[in-house]
Amino acid sequence: MKYPNGKKYVKSSEVKTVKEHRSLLSAANRGMSLEEDINLSNEYYRDMGIALINKRPTPINIVKVDYSRGARITDAYFEKQSTTDYNGVYKGKYIDFEAKNTKSETSFPLGNISEHQIIHLKNVIKHGGVAFFIICFQIKNEVYLLDASFVIKFYEIGGRKSIPYNVFKEKGVLIKQDYTPRLHYIDAVETLYFK
Amino acid sequence: MKYPNGKKYVKSSEVKTVKEHRSLLSAANRGMSLEEDINLSNEYYRDMGIALINKRPTPINIVKVDYSRGARITDAYFEKQSTTDYNGVYKGKYIDFEAKNTKSETSFPLGNISEHQIIHLKNVIKHGGVAFFIICFQIKNEVYLLDASFVIKFYEIGGRKSIPYNVFKEKGVLIKQDYTPRLHYIDAVETLYFK
Repeated sequence: MKYPNGKKYVKSSEVKTVKEHRSLLSAANRGMSLEEDINLSNEYYRDMGIALINKRPTPINIVKVDYSRGARITDAYFEKQSTTDYNGVYKGKYIDFEAKNTKSETSFPLGNISEHQIIHLKNVIKHGGVAFFIICFQIKNEVYLLDASFVIKFYEIGGRKSIPYNVFKEKGVLIKQDYTPRLHYIDAVETLYFK
Repeated sequence: MKYPNGKKYVKSSEVKTVKEHRSLLSAANRGMSLEEDINLSNEYYRDMGIALINKRPTPINIVKVDYSRGARITDAYFEKQSTTDYNGVYKGKYIDFEAKNTKSETSFPLGNISEHQIIHLKNVIKHGGVAFFIICFQIKNEVYLLDASFVIKFYEIGGRKSIPYNVFKEKGVLIKQDYTPRLHYIDAVETLYFK
């Protein structure tokens, strides 16, 4: 299947050789596939019994279904996610996060974070869940985990709405990049919330 | 929007009068709208700050997108949910469940529970999450919450694969039905897992 961005999703079970995996990795190094990297990491974490995190399916608004063809959808459109892209469980705790790329080297712009997502993350925190962002600075090839409270704070300041890179360096955790898992982000969760 | 079963999803904000709500309720009493009842209950729990539970969007496999019309999906089909329909957070804990109706009075048949869902729920339990089923016996108009471990046990026995009604009576918790929330299922979660 093709995603709206035209990229193919590759399941880890379909990645047959180290060479293929390396080519995925180099794609990742160009900052092209944060979503793929997280999906592959989640498969690894699931298969190894470390954590159970899933991507929520993209919500789709269905306009027309052709039942004569076995419930084939013939008209529909993408809806904005009103929650976040990922959630699941680690050590009994509820985990909830959003992942974003940025081409900026100096800050992460909050332009494509919706107010619904901010409200959702505030609710997650209120209910004692673990809420964060995974942000990939593509040009630096650095991926950070930052607690959602910082994103909420900067979102609510108003004005230009972006989070300076230094906040990630000082308050976030740099996620180790590797082959399997691509992103050791559960290590960062462990450091930030379970130690 | 219409769901595959041809029913319209009614948001609580669209339910304007007690009469309309009663008509929803009576539909529920006929066991027609377990999904609607849970969605309405989740809205209530979210708005009251009690719990944060969401329905996962139905996964859809997209075959064709018309970008000339602003990313309009012109060919797609429904995929089977490989996890469960609902998850979220209550008192910091990860909550995960599946909801099903049955017309049988004597047992809940496991025919439309997929092996993927059983594997998923086993994983939830392994990671310390709270996993259960909400089963509506439509003719009796009784809705039970049953810990997923029982469903897993009966699923793995083999043979006819169904759970006798008595198991729900003895091991499950009868969920109180009401106007708001339609189903007090968090009370049942509290009784079973937090007391």
